[in-house]
Amino acid sequence: MAFSTSFVPEIRFGENIHETIGTAASSFGAKTAAIVIDGFLAQSGLAGRIASQLQAEGIAACVFCDFAGEPKIVHVRRATEAVAGADVVIGIGGGSALDIAKIAACCAVSGEDAMHYALAANPLPKNPLKKIMVPTTAGTGSETSATSIFAGPAGKKLWIWGAETKADLVLLDPVLTATLPANLTAWCGMDAFIHAFEAATNRNAHAGGKIYAHEALRLITGALETAVNEPDNLDARGKVLLGSCYAGIAIDNCGTAIAHTISHALAGLAPVHHGLATALGFEATLAWLVEADTADLNAAAKACGLAKAADLPAFVSGLMDRCGIVRALPNAFEALDAAVLAAEMKAAENQPMRRSTIREISDEDIARFAAIIMSLPKAA
Amino acid sequence: MAFSTSFVPEIRFGENIHETIGTAASSFGAKTAAIVIDGFLAQSGLAGRIASQLQAEGIAACVFCDFAGEPKIVHVRRATEAVAGADVVIGIGGGSALDIAKIAACCAVSGEDAMHYALAANPLPKNPLKKIMVPTTAGTGSETSATSIFAGPAGKKLWIWGAETKADLVLLDPVLTATLPANLTAWCGMDAFIHAFEAATNRNAHAGGKIYAHEALRLITGALETAVNEPDNLDARGKVLLGSCYAGIAIDNCGTAIAHTISHALAGLAPVHHGLATALGFEATLAWLVEADTADLNAAAKACGLAKAADLPAFVSGLMDRCGIVRALPNAFEALDAAVLAAEMKAAENQPMRRSTIREISDEDIARFAAIIMSLPKAA
Repeated sequence: MAFSTSFVPEIRFGENIHETIGTAASSFGAKTAAIVIDGFLAQSGLAGRIASQLQAEGIAACVFCDFAGEPKIVHVRRATEAVAGADVVIGIGGGSALDIAKIAACCAVSGEDAMHYALAANPLPKNPLKKIMVPTTAGTGSETSATSIFAGPAGKKLWIWGAETKADLVLLDPVLTATLPANLTAWCGMDAFIHAFEAATNRNAHAGGKIYAHEALRLITGALETAVNEPDNLDARGKVLLGSCYAGIAIDNCGTAIAHTISHALAGLAPVHHGLATALGFEATLAWLVEADTADLNAAAKACGLAKAADLPAFVSGLMDRCGIVRALPNAFEALDAAVLAAEMKAAENQPMRRSTIREISDEDIARFAAIIMSLPKAA
Repeated sequence: MAFSTSFVPEIRFGENIHETIGTAASSFGAKTAAIVIDGFLAQSGLAGRIASQLQAEGIAACVFCDFAGEPKIVHVRRATEAVAGADVVIGIGGGSALDIAKIAACCAVSGEDAMHYALAANPLPKNPLKKIMVPTTAGTGSETSATSIFAGPAGKKLWIWGAETKADLVLLDPVLTATLPANLTAWCGMDAFIHAFEAATNRNAHAGGKIYAHEALRLITGALETAVNEPDNLDARGKVLLGSCYAGIAIDNCGTAIAHTISHALAGLAPVHHGLATALGFEATLAWLVEADTADLNAAAKACGLAKAADLPAFVSGLMDRCGIVRALPNAFEALDAAVLAAEMKAAENQPMRRSTIREISDEDIARFAAIIMSLPKAA
């Protein structure tokens, strides 16, 4: 047994903990802060309240919210200009806001364009701006991962990876997730569940990552259905939020597997919510995956409260049912077929997740999984 | 539920991982390194091998090993001078070496004496030297805690506390612990077990800390007896080492309780190994403690593989038996009595651990526990 675990940021968890952002930024010695926040959250008044809390501690704050949807290089470039000169970057929102904030905090100190760092072309600066991450969805785990994803100039999905992009402090406030609609709560929650599951069971799984992965499975299994069906239940919201944060730590250390091969391939074809795409890919492959019947698969099943790995497919389908997840792809997939998806699953950028999967994935497996996915109704 | 968890350093675990120290230090951009190492380890050739590994990466290294026994202020001062000007401080050894290295890495950048920071009198510098910690005993958890202990000018035990003292990187190498004698393996291992147990069950216990505490209990319970009785069993050595590191994270977040009130009080009276003193204090109070029968106590019992909290006292006494722990105090305690120990347990510096204990501790309880401890044979 040999393994490494990357550093885990300081985490502060609790209802209304986001109201302590002023003292948190002050503890870094910050005099100026840049807030990277989703536009609809900025309009809700949250950006203003955060800025006031910072100003109360003598910290001048600017707000950047000029982005929408999945991050594009143009958003990252504008964010980099916006945060330049700040002592601390505060990312607030879903995975997109956090990813943009993480990249901008690195590019702003070096003066390099984000493309300079894309796909690990060059090492990141050792002294990025301090970063505080405040997720308002419970799913991506971007607040604790070293990966940020954006679309390059040609529209192709690129990633920047490195411990330099990681948060110094994470504030987890269930109150901020309470307005997330039921379908997004379910999709993001399943994304987090699958992060934890794949990190705990793939070829890169190790003891250090499994601590967080298993806790995430326990937390999400125990609370996701309630969080979806009782949106104001802050206890359940908190457990899913904490679980998704821990799942982010798990993938930061051990990565993902086949479900993410499928969801990244789907995203390469047409717009689809990452959590939904991942859940569909997971459900389509789980019965095949658990045939491996490894110790890790059985341990993950136990963390979900099950007796054995073979019980997982029925359990996961039942959880998705109870969370109201409709098994359907967006209409944009109507014009596409299984061969196109299979080809995308075999694209170079999706091979690491294929290779890390605990079972060998043949091209016939790829074709079969693609056929299952593309046979889903187009309606979502 | 609301809680905070302090950052967890990067951890690299594996047999012979200490041989990667050169590339590890190089990844921090270090050109010079200061090695703080126990004298007997320096004489064994380990300091020279570490220096060679650093030099192979172009890093000049100096060695400081001018200390022995529990750290004293004079050792800390000399270490601070020795590490000044280095880019990275490498602590190698037991808790004393690591504690000295952690303090010196802070004092060297500010130019302040360690007494300036003792008992939190002043805030630590925000930009300490980079720190790599390499424990060669499995017990204190100093490699992952924010606490360092030393004796002040008057001989009184003082502590320096702060995230600034924490390691940036921890290397856990079971090979380095394989020469630890059986009695020290047992005493240090019980110290780590009790760190985990107290952190998981005291009034400050929380979900974030319990993740590590329970994993530590599982690891140490499953491997300590083997590590004591089969010194070359690197699998068992590794599990106890990893468990003590995780127990360090647990106390970094949640602190200790009554067993540490007793062991610190004993140490205030006469020299005694911290692990032995803590184990004796734990065994003397556990039956009383588990009467509280809290959910946390029962969860800790389950992490030890037991059905319920009430099973803990017999289990712990059996574990101590199987690890060959002789229930006896050093001869220096012959001249002391229970009243002296009770008074020391009531000293101001031991009250935080008394207050954090899950049961209220009356003065009558203190007297009873002191009587149990002081009635032990004096022979160790």
